[in-house]
Amino acid sequence: MSDNPSFVLKAIEEVAYEQRPIPEISDDEVLVEVKKTGICGSDVHYLVHGRIGDFVVVDPMVLGHESAGVISKVGSNVKHVKAGDRVAMEPGATCKKCEACKAGRYELCPDIIFAATPPYDGTLARYYRLPADLAYPLPDGVSLEDGAMMEPLSVAVHSVSTLGGFRTNQSIIVFGCGPVGLLCMAVARALGAKRVIGVDIVQARLDFAKNYAATDIYLPVKTVEGESRPEYSRRNAEEMKKQLNIQDRGPNGIDLVLDASGAEVSIQTGFFVAKTGGTFVQVGMGNPDVTINLSMLMTKELVYKGSFRYGPGSYPLAIALVAQGKVDLKPLVTHRFAFDDAIAAFKATRAGKSEDGKGVIKAIISGPGVSPDAA
Amino acid sequence: MSDNPSFVLKAIEEVAYEQRPIPEISDDEVLVEVKKTGICGSDVHYLVHGRIGDFVVVDPMVLGHESAGVISKVGSNVKHVKAGDRVAMEPGATCKKCEACKAGRYELCPDIIFAATPPYDGTLARYYRLPADLAYPLPDGVSLEDGAMMEPLSVAVHSVSTLGGFRTNQSIIVFGCGPVGLLCMAVARALGAKRVIGVDIVQARLDFAKNYAATDIYLPVKTVEGESRPEYSRRNAEEMKKQLNIQDRGPNGIDLVLDASGAEVSIQTGFFVAKTGGTFVQVGMGNPDVTINLSMLMTKELVYKGSFRYGPGSYPLAIALVAQGKVDLKPLVTHRFAFDDAIAAFKATRAGKSEDGKGVIKAIISGPGVSPDAA
Amino acid sequence: MSDNPSFVLKAIEEVAYEQRPIPEISDDEVLVEVKKTGICGSDVHYLVHGRIGDFVVVDPMVLGHESAGVISKVGSNVKHVKAGDRVAMEPGATCKKCEACKAGRYELCPDIIFAATPPYDGTLARYYRLPADLAYPLPDGVSLEDGAMMEPLSVAVHSVSTLGGFRTNQSIIVFGCGPVGLLCMAVARALGAKRVIGVDIVQARLDFAKNYAATDIYLPVKTVEGESRPEYSRRNAEEMKKQLNIQDRGPNGIDLVLDASGAEVSIQTGFFVAKTGGTFVQVGMGNPDVTINLSMLMTKELVYKGSFRYGPGSYPLAIALVAQGKVDLKPLVTHRFAFDDAIAAFKATRAGKSEDGKGVIKAIISGPGVSPDAA
Amino acid sequence: MSDNPSFVLKAIEEVAYEQRPIPEISDDEVLVEVKKTGICGSDVHYLVHGRIGDFVVVDPMVLGHESAGVISKVGSNVKHVKAGDRVAMEPGATCKKCEACKAGRYELCPDIIFAATPPYDGTLARYYRLPADLAYPLPDGVSLEDGAMMEPLSVAVHSVSTLGGFRTNQSIIVFGCGPVGLLCMAVARALGAKRVIGVDIVQARLDFAKNYAATDIYLPVKTVEGESRPEYSRRNAEEMKKQLNIQDRGPNGIDLVLDASGAEVSIQTGFFVAKTGGTFVQVGMGNPDVTINLSMLMTKELVYKGSFRYGPGSYPLAIALVAQGKVDLKPLVTHRFAFDDAIAAFKATRAGKSEDGKGVIKAIISGPGVSPDAA
Repeated sequence: MSDNPSFVLKAIEEVAYEQRPIPEISDDEVLVEVKKTGICGSDVHYLVHGRIGDFVVVDPMVLGHESAGVISKVGSNVKHVKAGDRVAMEPGATCKKCEACKAGRYELCPDIIFAATPPYDGTLARYYRLPADLAYPLPDGVSLEDGAMMEPLSVAVHSVSTLGGFRTNQSIIVFGCGPVGLLCMAVARALGAKRVIGVDIVQARLDFAKNYAATDIYLPVKTVEGESRPEYSRRNAEEMKKQLNIQDRGPNGIDLVLDASGAEVSIQTGFFVAKTGGTFVQVGMGNPDVTINLSMLMTKELVYKGSFRYGPGSYPLAIALVAQGKVDLKPLVTHRFAFDDAIAAFKATRAGKSEDGKGVIKAIISGPGVSPDAA
Repeated sequence: MSDNPSFVLKAIEEVAYEQRPIPEISDDEVLVEVKKTGICGSDVHYLVHGRIGDFVVVDPMVLGHESAGVISKVGSNVKHVKAGDRVAMEPGATCKKCEACKAGRYELCPDIIFAATPPYDGTLARYYRLPADLAYPLPDGVSLEDGAMMEPLSVAVHSVSTLGGFRTNQSIIVFGCGPVGLLCMAVARALGAKRVIGVDIVQARLDFAKNYAATDIYLPVKTVEGESRPEYSRRNAEEMKKQLNIQDRGPNGIDLVLDASGAEVSIQTGFFVAKTGGTFVQVGMGNPDVTINLSMLMTKELVYKGSFRYGPGSYPLAIALVAQGKVDLKPLVTHRFAFDDAIAAFKATRAGKSEDGKGVIKAIISGPGVSPDAA
Repeated sequence: MSDNPSFVLKAIEEVAYEQRPIPEISDDEVLVEVKKTGICGSDVHYLVHGRIGDFVVVDPMVLGHESAGVISKVGSNVKHVKAGDRVAMEPGATCKKCEACKAGRYELCPDIIFAATPPYDGTLARYYRLPADLAYPLPDGVSLEDGAMMEPLSVAVHSVSTLGGFRTNQSIIVFGCGPVGLLCMAVARALGAKRVIGVDIVQARLDFAKNYAATDIYLPVKTVEGESRPEYSRRNAEEMKKQLNIQDRGPNGIDLVLDASGAEVSIQTGFFVAKTGGTFVQVGMGNPDVTINLSMLMTKELVYKGSFRYGPGSYPLAIALVAQGKVDLKPLVTHRFAFDDAIAAFKATRAGKSEDGKGVIKAIISGPGVSPDAA
Repeated sequence: MSDNPSFVLKAIEEVAYEQRPIPEISDDEVLVEVKKTGICGSDVHYLVHGRIGDFVVVDPMVLGHESAGVISKVGSNVKHVKAGDRVAMEPGATCKKCEACKAGRYELCPDIIFAATPPYDGTLARYYRLPADLAYPLPDGVSLEDGAMMEPLSVAVHSVSTLGGFRTNQSIIVFGCGPVGLLCMAVARALGAKRVIGVDIVQARLDFAKNYAATDIYLPVKTVEGESRPEYSRRNAEEMKKQLNIQDRGPNGIDLVLDASGAEVSIQTGFFVAKTGGTFVQVGMGNPDVTINLSMLMTKELVYKGSFRYGPGSYPLAIALVAQGKVDLKPLVTHRFAFDDAIAAFKATRAGKSEDGKGVIKAIISGPGVSPDAA
């Protein structure tokens, strides 16, 4: 069997289906038949811009990195899975030998081979080769679509739990109600949040957040002509604190602020609404140069942390939260496409809505020959 | 005895000596006869601007908060000191009842009574009343001048040790070679630093740093016309990494970046030179709105922490480091003034040098009737 | 009004009602009219033995320390409560000035004034004087009986959350299904436990635990003649691991072992069932000399922590968990007594059951003149 | 070249020199020509008892695991070392894929291949095969003998720094002045200890400790007929506290107690002398069943941690401390043997002294053909 159709980014705005060789696996690897792949903003970004920061697509690259599938073949050392097992696929193969890998922070490995980050091919193909320890068996009751969603859910687990240190009875504000923001809210809820406040500039996204995982939502105030961004942010924060009874200290304080928007005004506003002694985790990326308020950072002794992908324990916790019913991923999958319709999936994700006007949160592309209706 | 001459800020640029009543002490307080007081940038800032951020001088206020003295009287519950004891004076009396105080972070107490922060009077007087637990006996061999310097040294201890988590064999870069920056270097050295890199735009300050506590120094490159601040900072960082063989990972990485300058380009440069997974502590305050690089924050998973004053354990560690000879404060005291010459002390600190052209690092004002030569 | 009837331990096995003066309060204190008081094993221990370890009852002492009541009077500095407010009463007044208090671990204050720990009087009286910051307002829906139970619940919060670091999706074994053990299970459940295993040698207590908060229960195996305690414990652990599918590593491992029994075989068994790299918190006290297995401690790198009372944040989290419905205290209150029947309450608690044979978990004594039926 | 003489344990008390095949290396491995190997108590234990706990020598096994050597050959992926480089050899090859390895605690890997732990051969041979990332280049000025000593020094680094969290200005007591105890003292000293107290029952070992790294030493009191071990330990602790002015709290408290003796009375004494809120790290192994004092554990909220080998960062810090002159390993090497005299080295280590009566701290065996005099 040499059939390995793959969805390849060839140049900016140019994609094509190609046959690629089926990968050979080593003794410690598995071959996975990919069944479900979610489309991420970064996939679209490579399609449109050909790069993200210093990562530049030079050679043709298979897209996709949020995937789940069925084990097709296992290497001779592999014991925890066997052919036929349904697995979530963690898409970053790390060196396991560097300082970061050994210290328990493999997300910082300089030699990581990450699916669909140039120059490495992604998972939008029939087959994908994976180090065996990155194939996580899906418990009964957790679908392959859920499995594909473990990737962005792991981003949320890493940001909220590992870096944010979020605990039962704490309060969180999440700026940005896109997929990652929504998943961060879901994780906070699963960890026993007292309060989960979603912020977005689109009311429909706020409404979705409220139905999904937010206890409160906030629509930022309008800008006033002539006011600077920092001035706006301060005013916006004051209004937010008033509307939602947020205080600088005590039980009405916000223990964790999380920005999943990348927007400067969100970040600035976040510094003003964070609790004294609180934590701020940055997971959304926009313009790299952002102005923050040093005075808030210092007088409140805030801790501002950058979040990058996910680390040890992220996938296992993500899967456990879903298996135990603490996080429900199903409402987030708004669109489903066959493998042959991948271009339509990208188009809808890019537009933020499908042709029928329905807003996209997460579009899932099925593997070659798999029906989009099979969850 | 009702003689309590005090050095009072009456309005912007207007100071005067006044007699103030000698404070009454409660059972848990001590009365200290102030012998030595260091001048801090914040004292000068109040003199010149009448405010620091939201702290505004409305009523006349005694200046000074970096002090040591001799116990004059103790309350009935006080056992650990007695009249005649030499003590360092921690100048922030906290409520001891709020969430922050109870949680071991009293620097964040909203009701702190801090010397020479409006509306509270400072220590530039003959007598100062202090909660007894803030009077720390000075061991033999630690002078009253050293005792006055425990205040800025505690800022350094808090930033480098408590917040920075700095440990033996780590490397640090300190931006800004003023008193706080130098003390941060000294603390890092005392904690067993492998490498202490001082950065400043004034060569003489770099030279002082090198003689005092830095293993390496760096003079930033010149700006080029037309380049933006972020562009400059990136270029400056590249040059710094090249000159000093700084790497993003491994033993040549910088575990802790500390900004004691408050300058935007220092902060920006710091994000570029920090080690992957490293920590950045902000202790210097300048313009409150500062642009940072989000991409560095995220891809390196930096932790950016604001530092405010000092907390439990800062004074004890500061005193211990000096008593054990791990930190030498003497080289930093460049100027000494009699109480009656306080105005000259402020003038020199403000100018950065005395009339004879000698650069000021720290000017110490002796208490009323105390000779400046008595250390 | 000088009426302050108090329940006083006069000598071993000798108690009496006495009138005591109504306490005067200072500016930072409140006077509470005590409404509900739970009986704790330590109260009974003082009654029967006159001492606990080095704490010896010399002078007559009012018993009781698990209380809630209504504010009767507040000092002039008190703002967060007023007369008439219902409050939980934290019974340990600390010095707020020592190293432990300042560092955020006030449970280790050497000068703590703890209710009903000699030589300090307890709360079984009409009135009790309290530092204002130890009076926590009870939210609507949280009863005064719940309020009295906040004391043992805080012990559980401190052991499971603060010291145990227990987090969502972790597993816990609790040895001992008495009040503290049950509350530890309830807290673990509230924090999102995957698995809560209760262990006791009394089947009825196991059944209660299973109905209340345990996901699994375990009845230790019988001892075999001639086997040593360590041999028994190892065999017991092996059986437990087999029956409950407990493993040394991975998702079936036990992240936190908590001993609320004080029994040597429980502690020994706990070392064998803990996960590699796991934590063991000791909250129950029995014979002070206990044999543990060093080999388990070392090869698994266990962390074995002693737990003493509770610290900053324990009461607030306890109250929040109850207010949010995450912990239900009502099933634990099995017996209710009028103030005049305090002796019967002690008798039942000591016997472990009331005269009608009903097992005691927690007996609550109402304040003077308060009906036991008023929750 | 097929010459690989090896020193093999064939049965209890039976050793022999044998030729073994030179190992083949994979792409990620190096072949090291072993130059220096220290003899450890565990090597002797296997020789005398044929087992340590559950680790039983069944088949003949090469002894030795504290080694340094010169790279003989490198695999094709290896870049950080080349043939001819002098390296310290970390003797535990871990799986890099399990929960423990990924979480940054590889010492707890269940599949670790550890030199001279059955069934795996050790390093007392001409050649030893090593995963490349476990070969650490020795800086100039660090000898091969120093390199061999990095293994026990890493044990000390792991115990004192990583687990003990020891920091500048803290105080430590080390029970047991054998090689590991001495190295723990040296590490504490290197980390800036205020006070390092060595305890041993042999005065000569105390004297050595005092000359080497201890600031204070203590010889336990004699036992009194009829007193139990816990009684003795309590009395011994009281005497120790009196003699050395050790207190339960404050600057004269002992932040870290470390037992490198495995003796029950040492451990018991340690619980009594530890500071309230202190840490106790167990690194010495004796009788596995040891009686501790629960009351001390609980009322002081001690943290009692088991230490096992070493983890990420231990070797790098050990090497750095030696390279920077913060730890001097040379005084510990008391005996040197040629490869052909390995039996004499074991005999001396076992006896604790060589035939001339000189006490053994560490005996080093040179590789085949290497002179014992070449450091």
